[in-house]
Amino acid sequence: MNVPDFTHDPERRAWVASANVAGCDFPIQNLPLGVFSRDGEAPRGGVAIGDQVLDLRAALDAGLLSGAAAEAAAGPTLNPLMAMGRAASRELRVAVSELLAEGSGAAGREDILVSMASARMQLPSAIANFSDFMVSRDHSWRLGALKNPQSPLPPAFDSLPVAYHSRASSVRVSGEAVVRPNGQWRKKEGMHFGPTEALDYELELAVWLAGENALGAPVPLSRAQDRLFGYGLLNDWSARDMQMWEMPPLGPFLAKSLSTSVSPWIVTAEAMIPFAIAGRRVAEAEPLLPYLDHPEDRARGGLSIALEVFLLTPPMRAAGHEPARLTATDFAHMAWTPAQMVTHHASNGCNLLPGDLFGSGTCSGPEAGSEACMAEIVLRGPIQLPGGEVRRFLEDGDEVIFRGRAHAEGAVSIGFGECRAEILPAIPWPAE
Amino acid sequence: MNVPDFTHDPERRAWVASANVAGCDFPIQNLPLGVFSRDGEAPRGGVAIGDQVLDLRAALDAGLLSGAAAEAAAGPTLNPLMAMGRAASRELRVAVSELLAEGSGAAGREDILVSMASARMQLPSAIANFSDFMVSRDHSWRLGALKNPQSPLPPAFDSLPVAYHSRASSVRVSGEAVVRPNGQWRKKEGMHFGPTEALDYELELAVWLAGENALGAPVPLSRAQDRLFGYGLLNDWSARDMQMWEMPPLGPFLAKSLSTSVSPWIVTAEAMIPFAIAGRRVAEAEPLLPYLDHPEDRARGGLSIALEVFLLTPPMRAAGHEPARLTATDFAHMAWTPAQMVTHHASNGCNLLPGDLFGSGTCSGPEAGSEACMAEIVLRGPIQLPGGEVRRFLEDGDEVIFRGRAHAEGAVSIGFGECRAEILPAIPWPAE
Repeated sequence: MNVPDFTHDPERRAWVASANVAGCDFPIQNLPLGVFSRDGEAPRGGVAIGDQVLDLRAALDAGLLSGAAAEAAAGPTLNPLMAMGRAASRELRVAVSELLAEGSGAAGREDILVSMASARMQLPSAIANFSDFMVSRDHSWRLGALKNPQSPLPPAFDSLPVAYHSRASSVRVSGEAVVRPNGQWRKKEGMHFGPTEALDYELELAVWLAGENALGAPVPLSRAQDRLFGYGLLNDWSARDMQMWEMPPLGPFLAKSLSTSVSPWIVTAEAMIPFAIAGRRVAEAEPLLPYLDHPEDRARGGLSIALEVFLLTPPMRAAGHEPARLTATDFAHMAWTPAQMVTHHASNGCNLLPGDLFGSGTCSGPEAGSEACMAEIVLRGPIQLPGGEVRRFLEDGDEVIFRGRAHAEGAVSIGFGECRAEILPAIPWPAE
Repeated sequence: MNVPDFTHDPERRAWVASANVAGCDFPIQNLPLGVFSRDGEAPRGGVAIGDQVLDLRAALDAGLLSGAAAEAAAGPTLNPLMAMGRAASRELRVAVSELLAEGSGAAGREDILVSMASARMQLPSAIANFSDFMVSRDHSWRLGALKNPQSPLPPAFDSLPVAYHSRASSVRVSGEAVVRPNGQWRKKEGMHFGPTEALDYELELAVWLAGENALGAPVPLSRAQDRLFGYGLLNDWSARDMQMWEMPPLGPFLAKSLSTSVSPWIVTAEAMIPFAIAGRRVAEAEPLLPYLDHPEDRARGGLSIALEVFLLTPPMRAAGHEPARLTATDFAHMAWTPAQMVTHHASNGCNLLPGDLFGSGTCSGPEAGSEACMAEIVLRGPIQLPGGEVRRFLEDGDEVIFRGRAHAEGAVSIGFGECRAEILPAIPWPAE
């Protein structure tokens, strides 16, 4: 499964010209899946190719695609395809790659394409459950040291991928604005309730799940890869003042459930095969418990994905500045692999459902500049922006933009598109 | 809304004789809603009456019931009724009370009844989100004191109803067995992975939600009662060894998501009107923040519900012993009201959906005997059972049974039925 097939061939080109432009996020080697709608039409599945969306329903109706996998991907959510497991997304990838390749019989069939500019993207799945991990040692160390300088990491950090259950109902697709939440925390002068004064982003990888294990039935690490449908970008918006106050001992609650943004395109696990790297745990001192250790995961369980965060403020926008880069990091820094997250999560028998969402946790790296949230960046001092603005946390009107890109020697680089949202002012507390 | 109507009249009797027996959980003053199926028939909505279930679909088809609320309650989940809000469940309660009353034109229509013995109960709603609170001061104090004897309560305990997001996919209806989970924790000799050695129950009230607020739109306390659909019993099974290890700093995770059991019958908020009591916070020293304070909630936001836990072990079963009572407590001890839970949860704009589930947290009281989980009880010493057995935590084959009953002067007492489950042995970790 880890040997790339012809769909990854660097010489392969699409008949959609924009997909062949160097640096394009969506060349024919990517083929990420999403759900889109257009002008009051029903939402349906699509594949990103260059600056176009392949309309799977249209391709099926035109007789250019067929099969259960394509049918399952063409509806208003990707859950049916996710329920079919990895084999189905492999089958679909091969079929779509052949359809879109230069020389295909479908070449020039503009009727099965929709321009991205006219497609309104939706959440790719009806998310039944959302679990958020914390697998960056650097993130955990920097923020942990504020409270426990002697012992910054959670006690279990090196023994298991630390995680908590988060809120599914408030996950939204990129582009939907985020309303600054009201919340409670203790100020010097006493208890306070009002708009958060410490709104932050957290740059995370979204992990989308395929298949299902029954309640009580775990997923051994040797089979966990089959549960990984694909990946995206995830902004785990965090209200730090509320979070610090509410966390002990049951963990983050309203500081996180205010909203979570995800990028609309799921880069499939199939597409990520060339970008697999060693699981990070090989070099660590403490031996892993056997259920979290497998040669395949050690060899190829990790992923190399360059991840960036940009900020655009209203004054920057007015002055014509480009978004300023606040974070440049890589998922390769993470201490645990996506497969280890699956196996640990299901190790108690917890049933993971098709379309369930994991967040990786904030993907900070060790270097200055790789801190993947503002709470970490400002440990080096306030953030200086073009035009002279200074930020410690997000202000109303700020727009946060995530980008991701995977590179590997001998492979065509692929992108994740964007995850972006603007901060809207808090809503006044309603009268009775 | 807080003035009981004729449906609460203590003189009112049903034409279903078993409902009129003193001490029955389901007299005509109760009328809880659930979903049942029988012998391969499709699941559908029902109302408990005595030892029978009123089959709402059958009553509709027979022309004995009509209206949008009854139609919404007759399907495979109660979510459509829950989506209609409190007014719809009031309307349905009145119609069903008239249908089942002595002297009704429907009297003797056995064709719209199904015996409980032949009904297989289902989850009442498709649960999109499950949040678990911790609103017992006594529970929080006893367990908190083990770690922080100087300051046992969470810092925010008196300022907000502490809660965390829990796992929706593993919620199961009463009667479904619970598999002992595998998990990880640190033993004296080092890291360990295997079946939990500290499986516990937590006796909680289930709170089922009606209506919906859009993401970003809070629910002021004056309107929170309209979001309370009804109540049941909830067992928040907990693996204490795993929990202590995984909790810092993000809260409980796999120690809780192994399974959660709920009783099948939802006692509606309408049925609970006579059992309203003052919200507990009136007497406390620290003033409440205004968003969590309202005269109506102070006066009638609390609920008086006697709650009990019984244990039946395999040797007790073999010897013909009755289940032994481990806990006798009351929801009246809680420090926060269900309406305050709603308002706090939505105060950041989090969207609460119809059919969402809250757990109240372990309903411990102050007295010996009112501890609502084994971890608290054993602080007084091991649990002695009839026949000479001793327990600190649950063993395989143990059956845990929750019961609840509401009493008030001048009102007919109503019951919650049971929430019960047996512990099955852990599944051996799968070979590759």
